[in-house]
Amino acid sequence: MRTEVRRLKKVKLRSPILVEGLPGLALVGRLAVGYLVEALGAEKFAELYSPHFPYYVIVDSEGRIRLPRGEFYYWKNPDRGPDLMLLVGDSQAQTNEGQYEVATCVLEFARSHGVRMVITVGGYRTGEGGSKVVCASTSKELLVKAVEAGAEISPPGSPIVGIAGLLLGLTGFMDMEAICLLGETKGHLPDPKAAKNVLKVLSRLLGIEVDFADLDKSIEKAARIERSLMEVEIGDILGREAGEGREGRRPPYIV
Amino acid sequence: MRTEVRRLKKVKLRSPILVEGLPGLALVGRLAVGYLVEALGAEKFAELYSPHFPYYVIVDSEGRIRLPRGEFYYWKNPDRGPDLMLLVGDSQAQTNEGQYEVATCVLEFARSHGVRMVITVGGYRTGEGGSKVVCASTSKELLVKAVEAGAEISPPGSPIVGIAGLLLGLTGFMDMEAICLLGETKGHLPDPKAAKNVLKVLSRLLGIEVDFADLDKSIEKAARIERSLMEVEIGDILGREAGEGREGRRPPYIV
Amino acid sequence: MRTEVRRLKKVKLRSPILVEGLPGLALVGRLAVGYLVEALGAEKFAELYSPHFPYYVIVDSEGRIRLPRGEFYYWKNPDRGPDLMLLVGDSQAQTNEGQYEVATCVLEFARSHGVRMVITVGGYRTGEGGSKVVCASTSKELLVKAVEAGAEISPPGSPIVGIAGLLLGLTGFMDMEAICLLGETKGHLPDPKAAKNVLKVLSRLLGIEVDFADLDKSIEKAARIERSLMEVEIGDILGREAGEGREGRRPPYIV
Amino acid sequence: MRTEVRRLKKVKLRSPILVEGLPGLALVGRLAVGYLVEALGAEKFAELYSPHFPYYVIVDSEGRIRLPRGEFYYWKNPDRGPDLMLLVGDSQAQTNEGQYEVATCVLEFARSHGVRMVITVGGYRTGEGGSKVVCASTSKELLVKAVEAGAEISPPGSPIVGIAGLLLGLTGFMDMEAICLLGETKGHLPDPKAAKNVLKVLSRLLGIEVDFADLDKSIEKAARIERSLMEVEIGDILGREAGEGREGRRPPYIV
Repeated sequence: MRTEVRRLKKVKLRSPILVEGLPGLALVGRLAVGYLVEALGAEKFAELYSPHFPYYVIVDSEGRIRLPRGEFYYWKNPDRGPDLMLLVGDSQAQTNEGQYEVATCVLEFARSHGVRMVITVGGYRTGEGGSKVVCASTSKELLVKAVEAGAEISPPGSPIVGIAGLLLGLTGFMDMEAICLLGETKGHLPDPKAAKNVLKVLSRLLGIEVDFADLDKSIEKAARIERSLMEVEIGDILGREAGEGREGRRPPYIV
Repeated sequence: MRTEVRRLKKVKLRSPILVEGLPGLALVGRLAVGYLVEALGAEKFAELYSPHFPYYVIVDSEGRIRLPRGEFYYWKNPDRGPDLMLLVGDSQAQTNEGQYEVATCVLEFARSHGVRMVITVGGYRTGEGGSKVVCASTSKELLVKAVEAGAEISPPGSPIVGIAGLLLGLTGFMDMEAICLLGETKGHLPDPKAAKNVLKVLSRLLGIEVDFADLDKSIEKAARIERSLMEVEIGDILGREAGEGREGRRPPYIV
Repeated sequence: MRTEVRRLKKVKLRSPILVEGLPGLALVGRLAVGYLVEALGAEKFAELYSPHFPYYVIVDSEGRIRLPRGEFYYWKNPDRGPDLMLLVGDSQAQTNEGQYEVATCVLEFARSHGVRMVITVGGYRTGEGGSKVVCASTSKELLVKAVEAGAEISPPGSPIVGIAGLLLGLTGFMDMEAICLLGETKGHLPDPKAAKNVLKVLSRLLGIEVDFADLDKSIEKAARIERSLMEVEIGDILGREAGEGREGRRPPYIV
Repeated sequence: MRTEVRRLKKVKLRSPILVEGLPGLALVGRLAVGYLVEALGAEKFAELYSPHFPYYVIVDSEGRIRLPRGEFYYWKNPDRGPDLMLLVGDSQAQTNEGQYEVATCVLEFARSHGVRMVITVGGYRTGEGGSKVVCASTSKELLVKAVEAGAEISPPGSPIVGIAGLLLGLTGFMDMEAICLLGETKGHLPDPKAAKNVLKVLSRLLGIEVDFADLDKSIEKAARIERSLMEVEIGDILGREAGEGREGRRPPYIV
């Protein structure tokens, strides 16, 4: 088995933009892009499989199993704006080379559909877990637009790790532009609030409207969970576990 | 050296089912399928070697050595039922990519013999170590049959790790169906009792009769070992060791 | 993506010497060769990318991102001496095989420009952090010249780890000669003083003049930082972190 | 760079036997076969390089460097007995696949010189560090001969790890026979005494005479070192370090 995209349906897209949200820190990207898929009613048209994904299968609520994978959705913009290609999934690649291989595969597939612009979404950790969204990009113009949409320029120094970063870096070889939006998070639990903050910037950047009603419910639920965790005083333990590097086994909530 | 199957004998099988039981948690799969090989008098007809198996050789009781390997056995069903192809062996692959490579190699070999259905067998850990058998599958019909044979549908969430899971996941690309049967175990020692529980479901599913007399002896012996371990109060230590992820060096009883 | 050099500009060099200074212990090599690039006004003409570099991107002070990479600079010697090809960059390869692959790629690129001699630069750790520079080489004549330039012959035993070592070792297959200059350092912080010590030997060896004024400022600044760290008594903690093998995640100052 | 043998000299050997002694537990194999090279005055005729060897270079007493490598020596038997091909070197491969690749490369090279029999040499750990030599083989006849030469049949169970084991296992695919001789050692320091014990069995098995005078001096020296270590009570610390798996960085005495 090689890293490959399996197409479920042939689609033709108009000046599409790729938006990536695979699982990462506090699931911010996964939650944000996953919500966007739901909110827009985007349709799945391809799956990405790789021997660099974890060597397990996932069991759903009916006992059905499947391999970890990336899923490509598309959304036809009813207005003049660009169509969207949305990438969510179960996992990132588990090795250094695998990360480069999967990211390259994603970009080649996107490009074959005419994608020229890539937006990656994720989280960045701070002690406070405020509501900032920072951005970094291959293009000065994109940075300006993101700032207009509510983001701040990322401070220099700390690298952007994983596929959200690599996709940006690799666009340079493929005549594409890319920007990364990272939502502030404490990072020790799935963080729908950070996802919403990112989505607000993203939707403005894309010029689309998103109804956040369902996401607000998730935020309330997550807040309740966090409060009850703190009450039983195990918050710090969970924090420690979630803080482990992604080299190790993923914490269960990522699957 | 590449991952490859070395055929010892040419066999022709009638609508064969592959049953996999490589070493994993508490050796449940290895013990179950190994017992089935003995009980049915199945005959070895091929071996699988891989540079992803551990880089050591195994010494037998006469000082003879051999590489770790997978072993394929076949059993001709004297009745109308399907023939069996049984896979046991010494080890699973040691790396993420190696797991995908070995699983793919197994399925390609099975398919070249006409296999359309795969059953994988293993253990799942609970604190109680009860006698449940859970199942997960690529196919709803198979789940129904497994439940009729005494299994319960696996709860969602926890992934099925290793070749027992990957074989299931990869059948999707090969026009095959697959089901996994996992026996409940405490998981810190080889568990012939869990193996028997799985075998009971498996034999009903396959419509074959298995005499459990010898397995019952193993169960008694294992129970005696566990009791004496508990007496010297080192049970907890062993538990900790056996609980180590399979990334690390395998505990000795797996060889 | 494969390990590859992307040429930005075609250059023709006269009997060029390759000088390598990728990040390593206390950044000695990186600081020394980086300073040389500045001091000589060398011009970038190629970049090396590899899937064995870390899977992240680097954010600069304006929010622009790029992949980790190696950078080749060239300097045309205004005198009779040899031209220089200078290699600096963000990171070394992250795996054993990656190290061999990147080093081989560097040498093949250098050779295609007529390089026959390679100088690698780095640090070696001692408790005292004195001001010695030691050398090791594939060639007795080069060792003699380095000693004349102020270096001491490296004591035997401790291997030279990473690309500074591998480049030396691999020249043997390519009809090249090579020498390594290692500056003594305590090794727990970026060490511009060790870099200066190495540069003094290097400039004599190359027969070029280097103005150390700016480097002296960095040395003073580093000394101030170290003093203040010691005052708050966290020097030992940092020392422990910097002492971690380079298998792990790089300490932040390397990026 | 790939794993490959670089031939220094063309030699023709008469029914040669390969004797392997790369560094492993307590350097027993390395010391034994290294001594045999010296004692017989064997001549080097080829070197094996691999990107799976560690990514460093070794510095000799004159400041000269070289890559880690395997070295093949040959010895022409002046009597009727078989010629010898002796393999020593600096390191074993660092990864699972690398181990298979290097071992396969060694056997292919040996076979191209007509080798049909392989003897691997190493150490095995016991608490007592007695003077036993155990053997394991692909062939019953070889075991009988080794027992006649003073070895005992290895107990079953504990695998033979590394190239000493893999070479045995892989001969099965190449129409060769192989035996492994392992000398008992405490394993925490280079153990020339265990090397001598193995050499006594090996020389009888090969029907050659070896003068042990120089090895006896090494044994005395090693005994002195061990005594002085025990006096300063750090023996236990060293023991812990030497006991680390070979996945990690090698203890310094192996280089």
